[in-house]
Amino acid sequence: MGDVSAPGRVAAAGEGISEEELALAARNHGLPLETLRHDVTPPGLHYVLVHYDIPYIPEADANDWRLSVGGRVDTPLDLGLAELRRLPAVTHRVTMECAGNGRARLTPRPVSQPWLVEAVGTADWTGVPLRTVLAGAGVEAGAVEAVFTGADHGVERGVEQDYRRSLALPVDADVLLAYEMNGAPIPPQHGHPLRLVVPGWYGMGNVKWLRSIELVDAPFTGFQQAVAYRYRQSPEDPGEPVTRIAPRALLIPPGFPDFMSRVRVVRSGPVDLRGRAWSGRGPVTRVELSADDGHTWTDAEVTPPGAHRWAWQPWHTTWTATPGHHTLTARATDTTGRTQPLEPPWNRGGFGNNATQRVPVLCH
Amino acid sequence: MGDVSAPGRVAAAGEGISEEELALAARNHGLPLETLRHDVTPPGLHYVLVHYDIPYIPEADANDWRLSVGGRVDTPLDLGLAELRRLPAVTHRVTMECAGNGRARLTPRPVSQPWLVEAVGTADWTGVPLRTVLAGAGVEAGAVEAVFTGADHGVERGVEQDYRRSLALPVDADVLLAYEMNGAPIPPQHGHPLRLVVPGWYGMGNVKWLRSIELVDAPFTGFQQAVAYRYRQSPEDPGEPVTRIAPRALLIPPGFPDFMSRVRVVRSGPVDLRGRAWSGRGPVTRVELSADDGHTWTDAEVTPPGAHRWAWQPWHTTWTATPGHHTLTARATDTTGRTQPLEPPWNRGGFGNNATQRVPVLCH
Repeated sequence: MGDVSAPGRVAAAGEGISEEELALAARNHGLPLETLRHDVTPPGLHYVLVHYDIPYIPEADANDWRLSVGGRVDTPLDLGLAELRRLPAVTHRVTMECAGNGRARLTPRPVSQPWLVEAVGTADWTGVPLRTVLAGAGVEAGAVEAVFTGADHGVERGVEQDYRRSLALPVDADVLLAYEMNGAPIPPQHGHPLRLVVPGWYGMGNVKWLRSIELVDAPFTGFQQAVAYRYRQSPEDPGEPVTRIAPRALLIPPGFPDFMSRVRVVRSGPVDLRGRAWSGRGPVTRVELSADDGHTWTDAEVTPPGAHRWAWQPWHTTWTATPGHHTLTARATDTTGRTQPLEPPWNRGGFGNNATQRVPVLCH
Repeated sequence: MGDVSAPGRVAAAGEGISEEELALAARNHGLPLETLRHDVTPPGLHYVLVHYDIPYIPEADANDWRLSVGGRVDTPLDLGLAELRRLPAVTHRVTMECAGNGRARLTPRPVSQPWLVEAVGTADWTGVPLRTVLAGAGVEAGAVEAVFTGADHGVERGVEQDYRRSLALPVDADVLLAYEMNGAPIPPQHGHPLRLVVPGWYGMGNVKWLRSIELVDAPFTGFQQAVAYRYRQSPEDPGEPVTRIAPRALLIPPGFPDFMSRVRVVRSGPVDLRGRAWSGRGPVTRVELSADDGHTWTDAEVTPPGAHRWAWQPWHTTWTATPGHHTLTARATDTTGRTQPLEPPWNRGGFGNNATQRVPVLCH
């Protein structure tokens, strides 16, 4: 299948966005930045990235959905949604981000879904802690990882596959088998009827349309774990795995936009600037704002995480706009001391680019 | 504001998709083609095109929403949602398409939202017939058009504006002031809490976040009516207005995809091919399928429109796949005799390009 499924590559100097990248950009979508105003992202505005096709599972057929739990367990399980719903449920508010967010801003540009900065969203996910189900099956002593398989099937870089990812055991207490998003059945594009939710991790670990969990006694080496989703500098570099979300702040663009350039127009005087900030490694402790493209910075006020430790935190500050062109940018630092760079950190897959957002503004 | 809001233009020969076009493609989104399987498009999969920002109107504030009805009426009205909900409601299943669908396939390419073929969706819209409300206000004898203003504000091609469009009087009986989409409050990106729905027309006429209706005694010459959304061959050409949806058939891509190229992989033998077809001028009477990129055609079976005269019609046929590369394409013809062209009809705004979809398939 080599001629329909080429190896990964980076774009040549000056090479524009290809029709293939555009087709991905038209199917998948980011969060329109003005909708960062919502604490919980309304349906249809949360970012979506689908590797293959969205499986067709009408709501009426969801009752027939089965999740198998097998491999290195004492008692293999075959669970329906009704059985999962009878187990004690929890809800986590989770900010999820695509590992490829920021990819289109890299030079050279890795050729794949061409995100700029908007591949994020926050949802309330309800389901059963994965630990509950694994405890029910009984984890054998030799099990080191759980492998999760989704119902989406395709070919990628020449490899035909079901989408599949793993997590090391024991899994975090917050990892969920989710059957509701924002209090309703999960929409098709987000994994209906069952999805793994791994708070703090980039989206690739949150396996959608989940149909099996297999415990294994050696680290999983499938495509999405060992080939894709690694920070590499060259094709030969084994790289490091992509895991938790790097810190990021996003600004709700102030004023109103130009249709085509998306440049913002504001009136002179005080401008209330608001946004969200998050990190997959711990709370954001500092957000700074620059109105001169990163030359000088002032601290914004960040709301502590409160009850929702995996959700973005609101921040705000006031900027006094003066006539002319400005570039607003914000920078988050998390509790581990990690902070956003001003220039993109390059890798061949285009993952984890958390360079600061730049918002051009015209004040007049 | 000229330097942040440039005039419309077409791309130079060989000019790739710009970052501005990519930013629009990341915010707005089409229908993932595999979800054509759903009769009614689930939330978040229906295409979205937003000119400026999505207004922030929390559900709790929707009760304060007001619609003013004024101008050449006997009795100006100021209506809340509760008052609209007390009027007799109707529901129409409507297939809506962006007038710019297909734009990115034109040569030269008009620089704007770069749709390929996927800017469509079908929803059940519930609300009050516009005629009911206009009859309540009383249409003065001299009124010739109704002008609809949305709450979205921005600058476009140098013109600061609220989004505004008009319809000639009397309006069709099916035109709705809709407050529900698929039986729920309208999502923010589709016009919450109130939207004009004009069955059979391209999306630009279906004004979102509707806050006023003004009856006028001369044709409306606002930006979205007289400048944008016209079929022109040159900047000087006054052009013809963009109105009803041209016929189109879309195929649900068979088999499974390659991640990057979206080429489909099928096994040899009979392949069930299904899709949808629609036209804004009347039912689709014929759908033809070609497996050799439009050289030879066979008729597919089209389901008549039935109760939903404004919704897409399912069609299906069987294709016997043989090993090798194929290009599937489908062509719709409506009751007026209009049919899809194989080559894109060019105009400077990139509107109404209903050239046939091409789906590359590898059979092995």
